[in-house]
Amino acid sequence: MQDSFLNSNFDLSHYLNNKRDITALALRKVIKTYFSDTRLSSAMQYSLMASGKRLRPVLCMAAAETVGEINDDVISTACAIEMIHTYSLIHDDLPPMDDDKLRRGKPTCHIQYDEATAILSGDALLTLAFEILSNPPSLKNAVTQLQVIKAIARAAGHNGMIEGQMRDIEAETIPASLDELKKIHHLKTGALIEASVISGALLAGGTTQAVKQLKIYAGNIGLAFQVIDDILNVEGDADKMGKATGTDVSRNKSTYPGLLGMEKSRQFATELSNNALHALDIFGNKAVPLSALAEYIIQRER
Amino acid sequence: MQDSFLNSNFDLSHYLNNKRDITALALRKVIKTYFSDTRLSSAMQYSLMASGKRLRPVLCMAAAETVGEINDDVISTACAIEMIHTYSLIHDDLPPMDDDKLRRGKPTCHIQYDEATAILSGDALLTLAFEILSNPPSLKNAVTQLQVIKAIARAAGHNGMIEGQMRDIEAETIPASLDELKKIHHLKTGALIEASVISGALLAGGTTQAVKQLKIYAGNIGLAFQVIDDILNVEGDADKMGKATGTDVSRNKSTYPGLLGMEKSRQFATELSNNALHALDIFGNKAVPLSALAEYIIQRER
Repeated sequence: MQDSFLNSNFDLSHYLNNKRDITALALRKVIKTYFSDTRLSSAMQYSLMASGKRLRPVLCMAAAETVGEINDDVISTACAIEMIHTYSLIHDDLPPMDDDKLRRGKPTCHIQYDEATAILSGDALLTLAFEILSNPPSLKNAVTQLQVIKAIARAAGHNGMIEGQMRDIEAETIPASLDELKKIHHLKTGALIEASVISGALLAGGTTQAVKQLKIYAGNIGLAFQVIDDILNVEGDADKMGKATGTDVSRNKSTYPGLLGMEKSRQFATELSNNALHALDIFGNKAVPLSALAEYIIQRER
Repeated sequence: MQDSFLNSNFDLSHYLNNKRDITALALRKVIKTYFSDTRLSSAMQYSLMASGKRLRPVLCMAAAETVGEINDDVISTACAIEMIHTYSLIHDDLPPMDDDKLRRGKPTCHIQYDEATAILSGDALLTLAFEILSNPPSLKNAVTQLQVIKAIARAAGHNGMIEGQMRDIEAETIPASLDELKKIHHLKTGALIEASVISGALLAGGTTQAVKQLKIYAGNIGLAFQVIDDILNVEGDADKMGKATGTDVSRNKSTYPGLLGMEKSRQFATELSNNALHALDIFGNKAVPLSALAEYIIQRER
């Protein structure tokens, strides 16, 4: 057990930096191992190495530490999930979808390169994620590895993240109700966040009960994350966010602030965060990082 | 061993119909199991069930029969590969890429639906392929399953099929040499055809030597397939092809007929087919279907 786990003055900022460093190092290794000297690889790298929050890799590793230890499989799975997240951003930013020109403070992939390259580099990041998830096949972990691949594919697929994006686009013409909005966000953001946490726990040897509790945790923080995203889209600082704000209103999109008002939206996010914390009770001190992450998610400014 | 394997009058047409029926049945089961009542699922189904040649599933199953027997894993893998092939067609047809309006005799996905839906349904078919490839994890086959996932992801990824499409687009502005053209086609078509054959062989228990020979076979027929595609684009019947012909010339694309002339292109295809047949020598009568498929590929009219 690391010192920080027992320390009531847990330093989240240090923890986040450490996990982001591990992610960056592992992603650079992926780039060195798999990428070529091509325009396609260049576009993949451009989007993958933009300064994202790395929330999913951090959650994957934190879940692993809650039930066991971070191992190589956890780290490479964390990278694969970040690739899937990155591909989804590249495709969502395309002109036929959200038509965004700025992402993480930089021109979006189709602006920096071109639309064809952006579509293909998204496809390629998604595919590379599965190449990495299936590598290396060691007899001992093969069954768990397949479980993890399946969980991630389900979460990222047409009954998960992709359906969320589809409904998000449709909600621009037919405004969504509060229940529909929760469903959209569960699909679009929650499902992959859940898969990140579950994968980390499975690969670190978590029990069925532990994985179940972590899934509840993840479902709640996933939704809280999106509520805060909506709030930041209204009142956030575009410079801090690294992307345009005020876009939801101009697109006529249903949002939590739009449906509930700003104050109730903040209350809702806090309630979700509390549900998440409650689900961690069984883990005691081991869950200090995940608890701190739940609080970070509702207090973030970008 | 089936009768047809020993019969010198092997009926390829019957064989193709049988394997296509198996594929169609399995794909319908996939649709029933995984698809929802959504616009996204509808678009996925629209493209997946268009009347394709099902060449990759047929090759996957034929490779399995060459070294062993077709089992459930072979069939579901054949379906997953067809989904990957279908996603690649949907994305290649998009306006920023080939901008094709007709495919398999029907409006392309983005014409029938819209661009956003086409991008997302391609993404979803690719993702679903990996969900299916990781399901069900049985202890006995888990390691082979991971090997197959890896082989398919590599073939479909940024060092395989996607790089092929990228170079194919680039070759519209800078005409490719013959060597470059072979490389493009190996990446764009050959890699996934190789993976189809290798996967079928691995899942049916093929030896390393058998897989090696089948890879040589597949590399040659993959290229032959593309040479014939180019020839048909010049002199083919658009009705039989189910897509526009003459498009390569109008796009200024490097093609085998353009670089070698029509007669030498046909000779080249025949030579490749003969190389493929030679690689099957070690399998004797067991390889009758694969041999017939090699001949079919260079004689096809669509």
